[in-house]
Amino acid sequence: MDARHAILFEPVRIGPKTLPNRFYQVPHASGFGSAKPRTQAAFRAIKAEGGWGGVCVEYAPISPDSDEAPAIGADIWDDRDAKALGLSADAIQAHGSLAGLELYHGGATSPNGSSRAVRLAPSQLTSEVQWGGLAKEMDTDDIARVQRDWVRAARRAADVGFDIVYVYGAHGYLMTQFLSADLNRRTDGYGGSLANRGRFWLETLAAVREAIGSDCAIATRIALHGDSGVPGAIGLPGIHIDEMLTLVGLADDLVDLWDVTVGSWPEDSGTSRYYPEGHERPWAHRVREATAKPVVAVGRYTSPDLMAEVIRSGAVDLIGSARQAIADPFLPRKIAEGRLEDIRECTGSNVCILREETFRHVGCVQNATAGEEYRRGWHPESFPATANPDRSVLIVGAGPAGMECAVVLGKRGFTAVHLVEAQSEIGGRLRWTRSLPTLGDWGRIIDWRMVQLAGLRDVEVITNRRLTTADVLEYGADLVVIATGSQWRGDGVQPDYPDPMPGADAGLPHVLTPEQVCAGKRPPGSKVIVYDTDGYYVAPGLAELLAADGFEVSLVTRFNVLSPVSDETLEGDMLRAHLHRAGVRVRHATTVTGIGPGSITGNDRDGEAWSAACDGIVLVTQQISRDSLYRELAADPVALSSSGIEGLYCIGDAVAPRMISEAIFDGHRLAREIDEKEPGQPAPYLREQSSLA
Amino acid sequence: MDARHAILFEPVRIGPKTLPNRFYQVPHASGFGSAKPRTQAAFRAIKAEGGWGGVCVEYAPISPDSDEAPAIGADIWDDRDAKALGLSADAIQAHGSLAGLELYHGGATSPNGSSRAVRLAPSQLTSEVQWGGLAKEMDTDDIARVQRDWVRAARRAADVGFDIVYVYGAHGYLMTQFLSADLNRRTDGYGGSLANRGRFWLETLAAVREAIGSDCAIATRIALHGDSGVPGAIGLPGIHIDEMLTLVGLADDLVDLWDVTVGSWPEDSGTSRYYPEGHERPWAHRVREATAKPVVAVGRYTSPDLMAEVIRSGAVDLIGSARQAIADPFLPRKIAEGRLEDIRECTGSNVCILREETFRHVGCVQNATAGEEYRRGWHPESFPATANPDRSVLIVGAGPAGMECAVVLGKRGFTAVHLVEAQSEIGGRLRWTRSLPTLGDWGRIIDWRMVQLAGLRDVEVITNRRLTTADVLEYGADLVVIATGSQWRGDGVQPDYPDPMPGADAGLPHVLTPEQVCAGKRPPGSKVIVYDTDGYYVAPGLAELLAADGFEVSLVTRFNVLSPVSDETLEGDMLRAHLHRAGVRVRHATTVTGIGPGSITGNDRDGEAWSAACDGIVLVTQQISRDSLYRELAADPVALSSSGIEGLYCIGDAVAPRMISEAIFDGHRLAREIDEKEPGQPAPYLREQSSLA
Repeated sequence: MDARHAILFEPVRIGPKTLPNRFYQVPHASGFGSAKPRTQAAFRAIKAEGGWGGVCVEYAPISPDSDEAPAIGADIWDDRDAKALGLSADAIQAHGSLAGLELYHGGATSPNGSSRAVRLAPSQLTSEVQWGGLAKEMDTDDIARVQRDWVRAARRAADVGFDIVYVYGAHGYLMTQFLSADLNRRTDGYGGSLANRGRFWLETLAAVREAIGSDCAIATRIALHGDSGVPGAIGLPGIHIDEMLTLVGLADDLVDLWDVTVGSWPEDSGTSRYYPEGHERPWAHRVREATAKPVVAVGRYTSPDLMAEVIRSGAVDLIGSARQAIADPFLPRKIAEGRLEDIRECTGSNVCILREETFRHVGCVQNATAGEEYRRGWHPESFPATANPDRSVLIVGAGPAGMECAVVLGKRGFTAVHLVEAQSEIGGRLRWTRSLPTLGDWGRIIDWRMVQLAGLRDVEVITNRRLTTADVLEYGADLVVIATGSQWRGDGVQPDYPDPMPGADAGLPHVLTPEQVCAGKRPPGSKVIVYDTDGYYVAPGLAELLAADGFEVSLVTRFNVLSPVSDETLEGDMLRAHLHRAGVRVRHATTVTGIGPGSITGNDRDGEAWSAACDGIVLVTQQISRDSLYRELAADPVALSSSGIEGLYCIGDAVAPRMISEAIFDGHRLAREIDEKEPGQPAPYLREQSSLA
Repeated sequence: MDARHAILFEPVRIGPKTLPNRFYQVPHASGFGSAKPRTQAAFRAIKAEGGWGGVCVEYAPISPDSDEAPAIGADIWDDRDAKALGLSADAIQAHGSLAGLELYHGGATSPNGSSRAVRLAPSQLTSEVQWGGLAKEMDTDDIARVQRDWVRAARRAADVGFDIVYVYGAHGYLMTQFLSADLNRRTDGYGGSLANRGRFWLETLAAVREAIGSDCAIATRIALHGDSGVPGAIGLPGIHIDEMLTLVGLADDLVDLWDVTVGSWPEDSGTSRYYPEGHERPWAHRVREATAKPVVAVGRYTSPDLMAEVIRSGAVDLIGSARQAIADPFLPRKIAEGRLEDIRECTGSNVCILREETFRHVGCVQNATAGEEYRRGWHPESFPATANPDRSVLIVGAGPAGMECAVVLGKRGFTAVHLVEAQSEIGGRLRWTRSLPTLGDWGRIIDWRMVQLAGLRDVEVITNRRLTTADVLEYGADLVVIATGSQWRGDGVQPDYPDPMPGADAGLPHVLTPEQVCAGKRPPGSKVIVYDTDGYYVAPGLAELLAADGFEVSLVTRFNVLSPVSDETLEGDMLRAHLHRAGVRVRHATTVTGIGPGSITGNDRDGEAWSAACDGIVLVTQQISRDSLYRELAADPVALSSSGIEGLYCIGDAVAPRMISEAIFDGHRLAREIDEKEPGQPAPYLREQSSLA
């Protein structure tokens, strides 16, 4: 270990417990809740195994009036729920780490989609548009009942073995709703002065401490103003940092660990596009002004040097992490072993959040095993040795899927893996993606895999070599994996319009594809339209690139909002403000169906005809697999057989254009399962089905 | 029974099975899938008990490449899933009905959110925007495998006892994707001619029939062009009705029951706002041209006379129903017993679909017990006798919650229930809601309850009587239920803006609330702005009303799209087209923050200042509970006690403004649980938790 990093491995006392080191996986949603307890336990345990000294589960609703359905939280409404969550505590502690549970009440933000309970709030006001209904202004019976529920939930958490129990106050949920002078307009002892607005929080902390304080460390999570000026929740009005620090002072005797978040959730979980590593420091570190108790704060830290510096500064005691612990559960062990080059750095793309927020199984661009620990039995650092090490494997195409496949095959002990790339560098679509404004950190997907490939002596990377069907047949490989990716269509085919668009031909000077723009093609004239039916980062990225080049850029989107997918990665508001500042004009809910000389035609949101003058158009409409090599090979089984090719597979975007995380997952899966009987099909995985017992 | 309706009770043979009558609950999603098997079974069994001769479960994905997560379908991937679904078959058959299961593959539309499998499609094209990724163009191995999966799933369905097994082809899923000349561009035997495009469907039918045809009736579901010209799925291009009838001819030997849907899902499940009862007849009834086999079609039928006429016409053999069977599971028995006045008519508001589509527990404005059969043990027609029949109950306010509460208390045997209403008629907010353009059928919520109240001799309805706190204390009731509802704010308070809006005062002539507009208040001048931060039916309804009155109406919405909630009820596209035709101009993503004389000011979607001239503004911003009566009573427990009031409760919008279905649920719940120890709090309900066995 580098001596500079030794400070990270000091134990830290929190209340009655001691963390073995300063690496702390803060509570974060997974989508597993208490509904998938084995999946949850394995997902958390891997982080303990990887060296995180504190590992928390996630927000744990304490009662049916904080029912998060359709989202899945770690409900702890009864003993059976608690037993399910106890699996996680046991699994985390088996590796010597402390296990935490974040007891939670959402108040006015709880959808109560399954329970149908009325929402609760300090006053009948809302910080967000809630067509599901407004909340009930809690009466004092409601307050007492919620506090009783909190204590009962804490007792259950302690009984099934959790070391750290939260009174979750941040992110705009019930505690913060009481604290907010805007949302809390009560005239009783729970409204008015800061002491009154903080009373609900303080009373709950005291009751929980009284009940379990000798058994467990009591943590609370707070949200401070950040640079957006928006603390807590999206759009939640005003709790100033000074007020919050006063609350810290008032509550300090009741708290063993302060877990600090900064600003709105999009700011707190800021992506690499808009926030640098450690961006919360100016605010998070101010908590030290108000307490000598241990403090944990996040910062999307990926650099061990910066982590050590943050600890040395004395402002915080623990390095909090959510996304980096998903991207690399073994970060602490790698630092301890001095294997810094092996750390999978989080790209800060928030695909994990996108998947969780849209109720999908969690995923990660850097770590394809995230969430697959239980159901597929995958381990991020352990790769079952192949039974067929001598089978030679040719992988054609070194984009995300091909790189990942090669790395995993190499780690599984295949002794002759060739990764062959037609271009001069590996990386596939990421080579141009990382060159777009704000997307540089996505290049870490390539970088980590380049380092790994360099360390695998049985994997040979060959660039500048474009293989034909005949080349593949003559290559001499036992197994062939086609990973030739996808490309953007230049013919204007788009969702709902399966035929080419009149006038769309990327061979013309005024019609451009994203790849062409990134390769330097520019339209004639000054007015360019970027047309988007994709909805994520490509169209805004190209618009910003062209605006920076001096073009007058309009972005025409089929969607009602620019880049709706970016809302799922928490980037939407920032992205739109960014484009607005860059001078990009946006036209919404509009389709383009024809390209003429100097103008385009289409339909507006009411179906009325629409047209606009422009000197060129960039088509971000639809991708298409680059699969001709695969098709030609698959079409001639006799040739395959006589060439000695025992297996032919296709992975990644060459199968179907998808998000990068899913293409990587695909390459990873094939490499894990390539010894199976039907490797082309995913092997069945374990599911936590309903019991009929 | 009325002799005209006897035809509805004739048995109908389908393949090897016989339906006991012509009432058929077609497959429809519930959100219970195979994940909540007991909830599912009870939800379906109640329909069999109520007399539906055929009762189907819902779409049953056959494999992980049709994984509908985040939606919950009746997955039948393995024997354990099948066992869970078998509970439904058993429960349906226990009442003498046939049980059906709709085997399903979504193809390109399957999100595969949990399995992470690649989507499958005939060609790499899409009928809708799918940021999750495009689909794989299926090779012949994929086709054979999906067909094998279908047969395996059919065998499992038969083994656990289902009588009717579907090969689901409608609504734009995999079968229809193959059939569509737009989406299927294959050049092999599965593309090109209609016979080729239909081959996948026909082969699958044949294989399923071969496997289980002697044990089960084989049904298939098709989608015909309707008046929107859009069959199958939202936006799916072109399968003409003539082509579909040709397919019916080709497949007729393989099918025991044709289940016919019409147009896109929003058209097929058309709401009462835009479609009359039986609107699909011109298209659905054309299937008879191509087959003599039994045919079922839906039509949101609520009238027994129309049902009988449809059968007598010979065009269809069964009355298909989804929504009406939710609204009244006992419709067939009520017809059989001649109790037509007791039929709860579906309002066609699609709140059931809204809740299912947004992954909430199913709900219904007419039937508060829908989905509560297992978990709360509620029965739509059976009401446990109260242990305290002599306790007198005063309900203040005869809106949705109060009416429902009174009906249930009456049915439970309370002998002195007074429902007291300040207005001259009962109905609460529905009195003005039903007067808005297109919303007339929502009045059925009042109508059914008025009929029921009239039949309950121990429930007295008193109108034109506004009770003060003193009146309530002197009333002499043992239990008091406050159901005084809510009203729209006239002060401009809106989400994110907890303080009144400068200039917003509904006492002024140019500032209006929805209730005021419905009561006849009109702004001076001709230009009126309707400002919407609610997002559902009120603002569009008022805009249409005012436009019809000759005003020049602009609708300013805070949302990116007009009435986003209407998208969840499948009405969005129709509503927007309707308003566009009515000449209402819409400005999106805009807030109003100030009202001046002759103009309003606010911010546009980029946060830039914005203003507009107008003669008046209607504020559809936020509701507020009308709860002063409850608060005054609750504040004086001594007075309550000395008045002999043993229990004081608040229900419906007086607690918190919510959707009508939820207010009714609230009133229903209190009446069911009013003998419990803490009736103000919902009693715990059964949950189908994960097993740790």
